[in-house]
Amino acid sequence: MLGTRFATRINSFASGAAAYWPDLNGKPSLAQMVRRSATVDGLSELDLNYPDHVGDDAAAVGAMVRDCGLQVSGLAMRYYTNPAFKRGAFTNPDAAVRREAIDLTKRGIDAAREMGAPMMTLWMGQDGWDYSFQVDFAALWEAEVSAIAEVAEHDPDCLISIEYKPNEPRSYSILPNAATTLLAIDQAGQPNLGVTIDFAHALYADEQPAFAAALIQRRSRLLGLHLNDGYAKRDDGLMVGAVHEQATLELLAQVKRGGFDGAIYFDTFPDASGLDPVAECAANIRTVRRMLDAVTRMEGDNQLADAQSRQDPVEAQEIARLALARATATG
Amino acid sequence: MLGTRFATRINSFASGAAAYWPDLNGKPSLAQMVRRSATVDGLSELDLNYPDHVGDDAAAVGAMVRDCGLQVSGLAMRYYTNPAFKRGAFTNPDAAVRREAIDLTKRGIDAAREMGAPMMTLWMGQDGWDYSFQVDFAALWEAEVSAIAEVAEHDPDCLISIEYKPNEPRSYSILPNAATTLLAIDQAGQPNLGVTIDFAHALYADEQPAFAAALIQRRSRLLGLHLNDGYAKRDDGLMVGAVHEQATLELLAQVKRGGFDGAIYFDTFPDASGLDPVAECAANIRTVRRMLDAVTRMEGDNQLADAQSRQDPVEAQEIARLALARATATG
Amino acid sequence: MLGTRFATRINSFASGAAAYWPDLNGKPSLAQMVRRSATVDGLSELDLNYPDHVGDDAAAVGAMVRDCGLQVSGLAMRYYTNPAFKRGAFTNPDAAVRREAIDLTKRGIDAAREMGAPMMTLWMGQDGWDYSFQVDFAALWEAEVSAIAEVAEHDPDCLISIEYKPNEPRSYSILPNAATTLLAIDQAGQPNLGVTIDFAHALYADEQPAFAAALIQRRSRLLGLHLNDGYAKRDDGLMVGAVHEQATLELLAQVKRGGFDGAIYFDTFPDASGLDPVAECAANIRTVRRMLDAVTRMEGDNQLADAQSRQDPVEAQEIARLALARATATG
Amino acid sequence: MLGTRFATRINSFASGAAAYWPDLNGKPSLAQMVRRSATVDGLSELDLNYPDHVGDDAAAVGAMVRDCGLQVSGLAMRYYTNPAFKRGAFTNPDAAVRREAIDLTKRGIDAAREMGAPMMTLWMGQDGWDYSFQVDFAALWEAEVSAIAEVAEHDPDCLISIEYKPNEPRSYSILPNAATTLLAIDQAGQPNLGVTIDFAHALYADEQPAFAAALIQRRSRLLGLHLNDGYAKRDDGLMVGAVHEQATLELLAQVKRGGFDGAIYFDTFPDASGLDPVAECAANIRTVRRMLDAVTRMEGDNQLADAQSRQDPVEAQEIARLALARATATG
Repeated sequence: MLGTRFATRINSFASGAAAYWPDLNGKPSLAQMVRRSATVDGLSELDLNYPDHVGDDAAAVGAMVRDCGLQVSGLAMRYYTNPAFKRGAFTNPDAAVRREAIDLTKRGIDAAREMGAPMMTLWMGQDGWDYSFQVDFAALWEAEVSAIAEVAEHDPDCLISIEYKPNEPRSYSILPNAATTLLAIDQAGQPNLGVTIDFAHALYADEQPAFAAALIQRRSRLLGLHLNDGYAKRDDGLMVGAVHEQATLELLAQVKRGGFDGAIYFDTFPDASGLDPVAECAANIRTVRRMLDAVTRMEGDNQLADAQSRQDPVEAQEIARLALARATATG
Repeated sequence: MLGTRFATRINSFASGAAAYWPDLNGKPSLAQMVRRSATVDGLSELDLNYPDHVGDDAAAVGAMVRDCGLQVSGLAMRYYTNPAFKRGAFTNPDAAVRREAIDLTKRGIDAAREMGAPMMTLWMGQDGWDYSFQVDFAALWEAEVSAIAEVAEHDPDCLISIEYKPNEPRSYSILPNAATTLLAIDQAGQPNLGVTIDFAHALYADEQPAFAAALIQRRSRLLGLHLNDGYAKRDDGLMVGAVHEQATLELLAQVKRGGFDGAIYFDTFPDASGLDPVAECAANIRTVRRMLDAVTRMEGDNQLADAQSRQDPVEAQEIARLALARATATG
Repeated sequence: MLGTRFATRINSFASGAAAYWPDLNGKPSLAQMVRRSATVDGLSELDLNYPDHVGDDAAAVGAMVRDCGLQVSGLAMRYYTNPAFKRGAFTNPDAAVRREAIDLTKRGIDAAREMGAPMMTLWMGQDGWDYSFQVDFAALWEAEVSAIAEVAEHDPDCLISIEYKPNEPRSYSILPNAATTLLAIDQAGQPNLGVTIDFAHALYADEQPAFAAALIQRRSRLLGLHLNDGYAKRDDGLMVGAVHEQATLELLAQVKRGGFDGAIYFDTFPDASGLDPVAECAANIRTVRRMLDAVTRMEGDNQLADAQSRQDPVEAQEIARLALARATATG
Repeated sequence: MLGTRFATRINSFASGAAAYWPDLNGKPSLAQMVRRSATVDGLSELDLNYPDHVGDDAAAVGAMVRDCGLQVSGLAMRYYTNPAFKRGAFTNPDAAVRREAIDLTKRGIDAAREMGAPMMTLWMGQDGWDYSFQVDFAALWEAEVSAIAEVAEHDPDCLISIEYKPNEPRSYSILPNAATTLLAIDQAGQPNLGVTIDFAHALYADEQPAFAAALIQRRSRLLGLHLNDGYAKRDDGLMVGAVHEQATLELLAQVKRGGFDGAIYFDTFPDASGLDPVAECAANIRTVRRMLDAVTRMEGDNQLADAQSRQDPVEAQEIARLALARATATG
């Protein structure tokens, strides 16, 4: 059931390390960050980055997380091990580097299976371009889609979820928004493919997040839900509901209605501005619980459906606002 | 061959009406604007809006345009006749208004056939939403796509081209970018459907226009090419190449390579800031001719393809810049 | 006291005219719209456009509004009477047209005085440029500032408030944001000058509205407060709090603290999407009353000031959210 | 004379380090990067970051650069030495951390003097906020401006140039655009203060860069000019002229006319996408030389001034385009 599983970004727990670990030299270890994250009431699981957090002994890392009282919900690829990946992973102009990226992804999928968390998130942030005339777009697209198909085929029992993002690090990503990602998935044609929505990415892709979810739930599968907030210009990584409360509430209502019942993952950056990551994560869980309570309240009668059938925003917004205010004031 | 047909927006020719027609009372007639546009050297055709410009006697309007020495390249729907269309054309919450929009579109398609210009551009600017919770996204999408399918089916011999735009007049359009439009066309499933790229719309949809064209040419058909320019925030309607010269040149190279040989249409707004529309249109034709000359120069050897195979922007940009500078300096 | 005076845009009340005035031919008259607006519970006043709404008999128009039970809070200039204003009002390249704009403004100031509403809002939307190399920026700036000084000097007892906006109709406005407007006011040097914040303009000027207000209240005077909402891309004209609830609440807290006690004006566009303008305006008043109640609740103790002294958003946001939820749930 | 001094970002020269220094373990040293940069034909100087590049022996570092055949044009502060600076340098909520930032800046100013390069660039990227209600805007502003005044007063013979940027790392910077920076400088009141324009920052502050320069040159002094390019959404760090050729040319014409004759600095990120930094820097120098040649050509007669007096973009753009094409085709 939606709202029983909460996951978060583990690197957030390096924030304010000097105060939290007075004796620390350098950066905290993964185990230290996991133990810190486990103090957040209500947090049930973590996503880990591959290969950064996992290395060669996936089973041991999985056991460590479970020993701290949490689950691993899945892995996420990071293409940082070879500096040449800056020029592209699946779309690298050098065939050997492209092959290295594909093979690394397959090993990541194997590691996810080994950890008992058969879900891999692919954010292909290096795949894109910066300049007019830099790339042959048709060739770039085929390189991207054929690699996605190949890694999906590698293990049909591991879910592969593509997380789109408009830009950064590249000026233009090849998979910038939900609809382009759905075209790639359609062409790749593997049944274990799906999509991850990151709320802040959707905002600065100029998407209404709930519309993106509806498209995804119609044409493919929503496999991941990354909540956070921002100002629709960049990937701000703010707390859930900090800026776009109504749009977040609408997204939650949409994904629930469309059958999503996976973990709600907080992709926020408390470490970027030195916040206490435990308090920040607890605030996110509290906010989402209030919102899910509001969604339940709205489901109780058909007032909202009626307002929507007339496309009447005056009434629809008041219903949503009252539901959230009541859930918050009493929560 | 690309570059032999140039079309433009006829309403531009109302600009500075008082100076051009000293005896005019009120607005110039369509015939007056057509005669003025025919003074632009190199202009070969016009798009007309339906029903605004065409009314009930399409054949007579077509003959009037031809008498001025121009062709009609196609019609474009405008949903302004009923104020209720402000709340949506194909997605209007009132079934009767939605039916009226569909039927009006079919009559427009009939008029295009009658004028010997079997191409209808659909810009569904009223179809979208302004507020969270205002609409049921799944229902809105089905309403849009089923209406597109129905009007396309009405006359399989008339091309139907969908022109996407991120927003305005609605805060969010249901067809905001190339990829979403391709998903709609895929679902509608009619072979006479295709896509129109408007350069300024693509810019503020955060698309690299040439990438949008490559996607369209792979998955569907590019049926219309609207050139103009802007600052990637809104639909500025500036002269071609005024801001994004390299991106325009790249788009022209892409569409030519992908086989597009239709009219190049200038969707600019000289009337919004009181420019001389004849000089403005002539400048657009001159700019595009220089750019197509530059494209031809770049096709002469494989330097650019070689730079692109290495994704090397330093070399690729210099090739493009030199080609355009030479075409301009000698043109 | 803030919250006792509510004003709105009178043209909104043309929305859905055919249904409201079944016998109407053409557009509703100003008097019809005023009578309709007077049915909104809590609305106390209107801004009128000059010359559009006022014409030659300002006193009579003022009396008509008062007869409907409303006040005129001020006038706002519109430079539409001469099509040549499209190329600029105070910055028009033609000295005669520029003079016409200045003189029209002075007559508008006289009319405001005559109506007993000595406040004129200047939105210089036509003053700017569309293209690189189009203007001499230094000359354009001097033309703008000297005209502002001249009209302000015309009647020192009439407040002159400048409403900035990033773009539209021009691609770039000469007064795009709060800080540039403050530089112009500083240079103009007239004590009756001040600034109007339009919430949606501030959003798409990439401003945090409350920071803009703080700058204005430090360097000049906040004379007008236009509330609405949008998606930070364009002037959407949505209902208050529809998208950015927290930022609106923060703005209200800031302007109150800085001593603003003028009318709260709703610059929304219900007519653009066919909403019922009476219900829409009533919703705006209800939303602002809840927000002002929340501001009062937050003023009750120093929790928020304490969180702000630590720049702690986790605590500060929760305080604001709870205050607003309680004001809404019980309101 | 403008165009005789070219400077660049030294960290760019770590790009592709493994290929350039096959025996390198880890990152290249500053001296290695300086030697590599000195191979760029036409490059005359470098900006260095304080304290990162300078450390405790400024004189030795300056000598090393000169030994490589380059000059130091100035220093730029970086507030990374204390992780607490993430929450603000001059605006940090902790008075001790704020003091540390001010004192570090004074030591940087001393180092700049010691190196014979009395110019310090302040980019206060950490000073801002992420959330509504996080800060007291009035207090934040006073903290920022009083610290700027204090460091400027520290050494009246060292120029202090403020480089504004809309966001990143903070969601909102306290000095986001030219006009806000001019208000801060006006209030700080020190004669050695001025402004640095970064072209990409100006673009995504929604400024026309040449207008920003004109405002700065009217109200304060332009002390630094950082050229690069981008898509007006973020700090892309692309090569000069890659996207906005006309706007760059216009900026160069404006700053020259306003008397700027300092170094032209390339703030580009070839390292972010693995480009050859020597070829990339050489391309930037070549592009700017062509543009300055075009500026000279335009100065030759008064055609452009005449077109601008009529605010005629059709003619003005053609003059600029032809001048640049001729400078490029023959250059």
